Amino acid sequence: MLGIYVEEVRKKSPLVHNITNYVTVNDVANILLACGGSPIMSDEPEDVEDITSICGGLNINIGTLNKRTIEGMFVAGKKAKELGHIVLLDPVGAGASRLRTETAIKIMEEIKPDVIRGNISEIKTLVNGSGTTKGVDADVADAVTEDSLEQMVAFAKKFAKKSGAIIAITGAIDLVADKDHCYVIRNGRPEMGRITGTGCQLSGLMTAYVTANRDHKLEAAAAAVTSMGLAGEIAYDHLQKDEGNSTYRNRIIDAIYHMDGDTLDQGARYEVF
Amino acid sequence: MLGIYVEEVRKKSPLVHNITNYVTVNDVANILLACGGSPIMSDEPEDVEDITSICGGLNINIGTLNKRTIEGMFVAGKKAKELGHIVLLDPVGAGASRLRTETAIKIMEEIKPDVIRGNISEIKTLVNGSGTTKGVDADVADAVTEDSLEQMVAFAKKFAKKSGAIIAITGAIDLVADKDHCYVIRNGRPEMGRITGTGCQLSGLMTAYVTANRDHKLEAAAAAVTSMGLAGEIAYDHLQKDEGNSTYRNRIIDAIYHMDGDTLDQGARYEVF
Amino acid sequence: MLGIYVEEVRKKSPLVHNITNYVTVNDVANILLACGGSPIMSDEPEDVEDITSICGGLNINIGTLNKRTIEGMFVAGKKAKELGHIVLLDPVGAGASRLRTETAIKIMEEIKPDVIRGNISEIKTLVNGSGTTKGVDADVADAVTEDSLEQMVAFAKKFAKKSGAIIAITGAIDLVADKDHCYVIRNGRPEMGRITGTGCQLSGLMTAYVTANRDHKLEAAAAAVTSMGLAGEIAYDHLQKDEGNSTYRNRIIDAIYHMDGDTLDQGARYEVF
Repeated sequence: MLGIYVEEVRKKSPLVHNITNYVTVNDVANILLACGGSPIMSDEPEDVEDITSICGGLNINIGTLNKRTIEGMFVAGKKAKELGHIVLLDPVGAGASRLRTETAIKIMEEIKPDVIRGNISEIKTLVNGSGTTKGVDADVADAVTEDSLEQMVAFAKKFAKKSGAIIAITGAIDLVADKDHCYVIRNGRPEMGRITGTGCQLSGLMTAYVTANRDHKLEAAAAAVTSMGLAGEIAYDHLQKDEGNSTYRNRIIDAIYHMDGDTLDQGARYEVF
Repeated sequence: MLGIYVEEVRKKSPLVHNITNYVTVNDVANILLACGGSPIMSDEPEDVEDITSICGGLNINIGTLNKRTIEGMFVAGKKAKELGHIVLLDPVGAGASRLRTETAIKIMEEIKPDVIRGNISEIKTLVNGSGTTKGVDADVADAVTEDSLEQMVAFAKKFAKKSGAIIAITGAIDLVADKDHCYVIRNGRPEMGRITGTGCQLSGLMTAYVTANRDHKLEAAAAAVTSMGLAGEIAYDHLQKDEGNSTYRNRIIDAIYHMDGDTLDQGARYEVF
Repeated sequence: MLGIYVEEVRKKSPLVHNITNYVTVNDVANILLACGGSPIMSDEPEDVEDITSICGGLNINIGTLNKRTIEGMFVAGKKAKELGHIVLLDPVGAGASRLRTETAIKIMEEIKPDVIRGNISEIKTLVNGSGTTKGVDADVADAVTEDSLEQMVAFAKKFAKKSGAIIAITGAIDLVADKDHCYVIRNGRPEMGRITGTGCQLSGLMTAYVTANRDHKLEAAAAAVTSMGLAGEIAYDHLQKDEGNSTYRNRIIDAIYHMDGDTLDQGARYEVF
């Protein structure tokens, strides 16, 4: 049962440092507040050491990286790891450009994040050292399907072992793995892909969950993925006729605001392999 | 009938690269997803060539320009044109500062965008090489009115001819012109001016529409303007008592999410001169 | 009665230049439009002099400062003061990092803003030259309470006298002081703290209010604080079951959109000491 990890976030109210893209940053901040965490954003190399020092977790998202913020990511990441904080990497668009691919791989190798969360194309890029993605969305050819599931579970565990990180691969079916176990999660709705930044929001949420549950990183990461997917289902049920993706975005964050352990335990749909 | 151009966006799902301001970027991303397109944002000079190469259109918006992103605009713009992509320029605040005026004119002259969309004060600045605007909003003295309509249609066509671009001048009455024809569009509501970034959203939408309808650029640009105006009307009808500009913003994007060819054909109000 | 200061904003439609963080900038723009003002954002040192020159007020918020935007803050601030414009400083995160503390203090000393608005931890940092905050939220130990009220009123007046600025300290109880008088305001709801950027929004709003009421700066600043708090109460009443912080954010801006002098005069809860 994953609900206890949700409750822990509200009890501990983890402060999360985000170096994230300017597209979805407001939604990331609001979902962190919705789940009971507290967000702070800082990307200036001269500012990030101080800021990350007062936090418990660091969420690095390369969605609109530039040379200055890349430097900030490394300075913050090294400091956070030195202090024993939780570090998550969201390799947005890895595979879509050389700069993104190289930056994501370098962060993975030098910072050694505790959690890496991306779509399948991004994760494959990290594994292979190169890749192609349709912009910031996963390539259809890469999708985790029922047919490829067994193989993908093995892939996720193997990459978790190699990288030393919890690996979260999100899509129609979500996988959250360490080297030994893999959660296969079937919450969520396809319409979530029509909102910008549900992945970024999930990365923020996951950083808070794992930070508040340091001794149960895998379970906490899985709880974040199921919470987000379930929030997508609840919000979809709340959508009125004529409402579309912009209101859906608000309703998903609202559903996280009301999420508690019981709701998650009743709505979570997953298996562990 | 402009509805077919709306449908084409949903069929082709164009990937649009946006170098846009950080004020309204989230709404631009969500309206691109709402219309059936797919957004990606990147403004780092070392990243933009790779990113724009996998896209079909490039939306350049100078709303919060800085020296680094200006460089990104030129690098991306040149690459996009080299690849035969659609390039749109939104000269936000041209006329309000020397840097904005000079940057917009230089992009116009060196990149030769396929479409330029702005308010009348911004467009006059591009034509005259200087100007005054009330911040990012059009000067009232410049407004396109029934009295000045004939003259403004001629002005738009003439600038389209000179620049080689589709010219979209948006305001109470919208004009979309190439050198030979000008759509005069009367959709929309004045309350849309009380939301930040409806112009930026329209520029994103227009880039997707024109990219998906390369052989009918003028019609596609006009379809984007009528879609946005009609969405403003539909969203206004959906507004509840006590709701204001923040919810109106969401409802407009929601209306684009539900927009189809029939809805547009029934609601579009325009003439062609 | 503070309602007349609200009405004045709608009559004068002040143009406000914002150098603000990319987390909450969209909400700041929309609340400025909601109250009847007009926002423009620009942070590039080469752009800010021109932009601030056409405005009446300047809102400096250090929430995601970097070296380039810090330079922009000083260039804009000096120009704005030279032109006799209203300048507001929001020292987001002062006390949380050396860079933020030093930048906020330097802006205070060199630009001499007309208004400084922050939470109690940020304001104490400005007074003491150093401090500790829980990220961008106030430290609980610092809170203005009924017990500490008299002492805090004296503290606010004293800092107003020393700095020459109107001092607004916002929290469960809000204080707005010049050297002689202090408004103690009891509007608002605790749930507003679960939305990112209600403080940033208030700073934008306050800049517009004070700019439109230059001869009544203290009253206008107090009117902004009561308006924001009352909007939080009205919006809370409008919240539907299942709605959370994301929709609450929209409803607060919507409530500002409908705010008028009568509504404020009927709902404002304050004393003057």
